[in-house]
Amino acid sequence: MQKLNPDIPTITAFENSPDRGKGLARDMPVRWAFEEVGQPYKVRLVSFKEMKESVHLTAHPFGQIPTYEEGDLVLFESGAIVLYIAQHHSGLLPNGTEARARAITWMFAALSTIEPPILDYEITGYMEREKAWYTERMPILEDRICARLDKLSGRLANADWLEDQFSVGDLMMITVLRRLGRSDMLKKYPNLSAYVARGEERPAFKRAFAAQLAIFNGERPVD
Amino acid sequence: MQKLNPDIPTITAFENSPDRGKGLARDMPVRWAFEEVGQPYKVRLVSFKEMKESVHLTAHPFGQIPTYEEGDLVLFESGAIVLYIAQHHSGLLPNGTEARARAITWMFAALSTIEPPILDYEITGYMEREKAWYTERMPILEDRICARLDKLSGRLANADWLEDQFSVGDLMMITVLRRLGRSDMLKKYPNLSAYVARGEERPAFKRAFAAQLAIFNGERPVD
Repeated sequence: MQKLNPDIPTITAFENSPDRGKGLARDMPVRWAFEEVGQPYKVRLVSFKEMKESVHLTAHPFGQIPTYEEGDLVLFESGAIVLYIAQHHSGLLPNGTEARARAITWMFAALSTIEPPILDYEITGYMEREKAWYTERMPILEDRICARLDKLSGRLANADWLEDQFSVGDLMMITVLRRLGRSDMLKKYPNLSAYVARGEERPAFKRAFAAQLAIFNGERPVD
Repeated sequence: MQKLNPDIPTITAFENSPDRGKGLARDMPVRWAFEEVGQPYKVRLVSFKEMKESVHLTAHPFGQIPTYEEGDLVLFESGAIVLYIAQHHSGLLPNGTEARARAITWMFAALSTIEPPILDYEITGYMEREKAWYTERMPILEDRICARLDKLSGRLANADWLEDQFSVGDLMMITVLRRLGRSDMLKKYPNLSAYVARGEERPAFKRAFAAQLAIFNGERPVD
């Protein structure tokens, strides 16, 4: 393996992503952010076994992906990495202190308000499927998600993006909404479905999606 | 009511906090951040009814507290507000681009990695207590929390704070861990218990805690 160019950041991603190339793993928003700002990046794949070993745990205390390495700087948490990319390049944050703060607010809304009930629904889906309570609990969890989507849909209304222009807030919100996949929940909100589709149509999204799909299809990243 | 001074930001908080003055509502980290940086602030109390009405929903699309208002700027999401305060005052972010990015990473770790399983445990505690599955599910949720606390405890080790100095990352992490209250989960990790206590001993924390407790005790904020 060649020595990595210290000017090009390296991220980690799943060697075998459990989403089978759907672009739902947490390297996806980081790839998307890199593509939006035109920053080349390298990818180091890690296996599930390696993720729990000390080398990786030094970079990511919770044994997950992605990490971000650039010289001596090591970051984890996709939200933190995406924000760092947005702050150090142009293209993902508007000009003006107040507009930037609004964009960042939507990032936190995506991760703290919209994502938790969606994650709960996902985890229940794969961890509690055999439990007696599964069929009774799932509609409760759907209701919790839809209570949030109601409000988000009302706020977005007929706008293209959550504020005046596409920002890191939309990038993260669309990333989170994509976890709902083609579920009936998202279909109930045509403006949110269109919003997600609008994000997926961006050339930067398409390049990021293709890059992660290539790994699932057995094409290794080149160092 | 006097016209608010546009130089002093105004936040919203619960008129009747459901935590009964324990400082677990989401205005608490914002108050703590203000106190750490020495920024005076005003508080406008909102009732549960007002939170769901259009005036408040214009500021907070999800009908929650807190909001942050300063001149024309309106923010919501406690994470976004705390980060904004940290970025615009000294005292909560270290000097140096890399150290700042590390501190912000811990904020996201608090909100995206540590808090979701804790919230799930809380919500189950008050929403599913009467369900047949309650006693079987709660230990599952405790295990999910402890899996994260294990890693956090290992990373903190014997250090005072998550990085070299107290930062917005510690402020948010301690805020999230406080949701576990005096639970046995936190007691299993003496270093995390001591870390939370270390945060609670900070004068800024104490002032913030006293301010929210005063409201629960019937003392109204003065505009």
